[in-house]
Amino acid sequence: MALGEFGLIERFFKRPARRAVVGVGDDCAVWQPGAGMQLAISTDMLVEGRHFFPDVDPFSLGHKALAVNLSDLAACGATPAAFTLALALPTVDEAWLAEFARGLLTLADAHACELIGGDTTQGPLNLCITVLGEVPAGLALLRSGAKAGDEVYVSGTLGDARLALLALQGQLRLPDNALALARQRLEQPTPRVALGLALRGVASSAIDLSDGLVGDLGHILKASGCGATLNTQALSQLMLMGSSASAAPTLALSSDQALTAVLNGGDDYELLFTAPATSREAVMQAALKSATRVTRIGQMDAQHGLRLVDAQGKPVTGEFASFNHFA
Amino acid sequence: MALGEFGLIERFFKRPARRAVVGVGDDCAVWQPGAGMQLAISTDMLVEGRHFFPDVDPFSLGHKALAVNLSDLAACGATPAAFTLALALPTVDEAWLAEFARGLLTLADAHACELIGGDTTQGPLNLCITVLGEVPAGLALLRSGAKAGDEVYVSGTLGDARLALLALQGQLRLPDNALALARQRLEQPTPRVALGLALRGVASSAIDLSDGLVGDLGHILKASGCGATLNTQALSQLMLMGSSASAAPTLALSSDQALTAVLNGGDDYELLFTAPATSREAVMQAALKSATRVTRIGQMDAQHGLRLVDAQGKPVTGEFASFNHFA
Repeated sequence: MALGEFGLIERFFKRPARRAVVGVGDDCAVWQPGAGMQLAISTDMLVEGRHFFPDVDPFSLGHKALAVNLSDLAACGATPAAFTLALALPTVDEAWLAEFARGLLTLADAHACELIGGDTTQGPLNLCITVLGEVPAGLALLRSGAKAGDEVYVSGTLGDARLALLALQGQLRLPDNALALARQRLEQPTPRVALGLALRGVASSAIDLSDGLVGDLGHILKASGCGATLNTQALSQLMLMGSSASAAPTLALSSDQALTAVLNGGDDYELLFTAPATSREAVMQAALKSATRVTRIGQMDAQHGLRLVDAQGKPVTGEFASFNHFA
Repeated sequence: MALGEFGLIERFFKRPARRAVVGVGDDCAVWQPGAGMQLAISTDMLVEGRHFFPDVDPFSLGHKALAVNLSDLAACGATPAAFTLALALPTVDEAWLAEFARGLLTLADAHACELIGGDTTQGPLNLCITVLGEVPAGLALLRSGAKAGDEVYVSGTLGDARLALLALQGQLRLPDNALALARQRLEQPTPRVALGLALRGVASSAIDLSDGLVGDLGHILKASGCGATLNTQALSQLMLMGSSASAAPTLALSSDQALTAVLNGGDDYELLFTAPATSREAVMQAALKSATRVTRIGQMDAQHGLRLVDAQGKPVTGEFASFNHFA
């Protein structure tokens, strides 16, 4: 590995190797996979101005850069093991780097996920993390396993990150306490690692919600060759700030705006997953075991495309009625 | 994995999975390590204006982005297995991307190294590759295994990439044929994967030469707790364009300039390694087996620091005499 001009990985990020056979400081890290384990691998690149604001708190940025990768492991049902960090920095700001490292390593420690290598260089601010997880052979959760009749679930809350983004961009006003909550969701998302592990052998498919519910569910529909019907009443309960339908007036949101945030928000880093209708109890046990809120929001259909229905099962018309581009 | 706005990984880079259990297109790739194997992992980030010129040929850039990572695997004695690619692009230039992908995948195919995941986003041009290799447990070549008395070797040729860089920057004039050769070395380096594999069980330490011989040898000295003495006559034979000492006049280089390019050039992506004096024959067999030129350039000392001597073993004084900052 090239440590770049600054040796910053060694200075700010290196710790004694734990499970790694060889950690930071050689051409390669060396890792001994656990017996019977397959490796789950994911990479994400975060760019200033696109994935975060130039003035973002560096602790939060360190957290988020790893969180979005751990979220991919969670969606796969993999246990976090190790990661590499590549950083392009315009200048070396030691206070900024120390806080960034603290945010990154605090989350890494919480998941016993070891930094095993990296690269630093000068350039426009860019963070690229590649994460390795372990999953017993054959048990990885995939996007492709959903079947017609399976039920659709989502963890946690959706849409809050979107509201924070709109508020920070000046497109929406939020009360201070609501903004603080929403901003926490945007800047320090919680990867649902424990839930992903608890769903091994229970969920038929899973994906993490990075781009928004509609888009990411579309990936499951495509990979599984199914359609889906979602219940807008269940969806309307998904925003952090209480029932979004009832909170919407307080937030100066129409219920359509709230539903849009839930359906298309992005940056939620929750798990969307499916399970057979006969597995409701097992899903609830997984939620309990991982202390993670899980909401059933609909079911998979043999008919392609995505449909929305109200509490009475009647099709919702208007701007949410048609998602046939996922057919 | 977030596929970003463009789905470019799927469009330009995706191929049917070969060894991967799950390849491009899910939240994580899934990889089954070979029996008895450890994983070698390295990551490198390349930034426009720092690691390559804005007008670099995209085929060459695709080659180089993977080559610098394969070179890390080579230094570890690992067999290339798989890699992830994260790309930030200012705009989507399809012709550029197609050529970049062709350069990248041509080299990947030559080493049976499978693209298993990626991420694309909009931003200043940035390429980050993380590569996985496999090495039998306990056989990885490290920087830390050299001992006093071991001999020092280098593969291939050194300094040519530096000459190309100086010429392209207008700081040096090279005849057209020399520039073409040097530029090939700068833009399409050859990772010494076969040599790295042949050196398992033979070399006592190894590193790839990305920053320059003096700097990278310094990493071995530090990790191994040794010093070294290098022979300037051997070093002067290391430039591609024939004996650099004899070619120097043709290239309008002083022999000191030539030696500087060899010692401090960077971007060579050759292997620097050590082996016990009793292993000369085994080193030569490894060179033959991998069809790779190998030159013995000195030996490791108990005395810390780096020293240069001439063909008669007399200390070389002047600008190359002292490298005590590596003591």
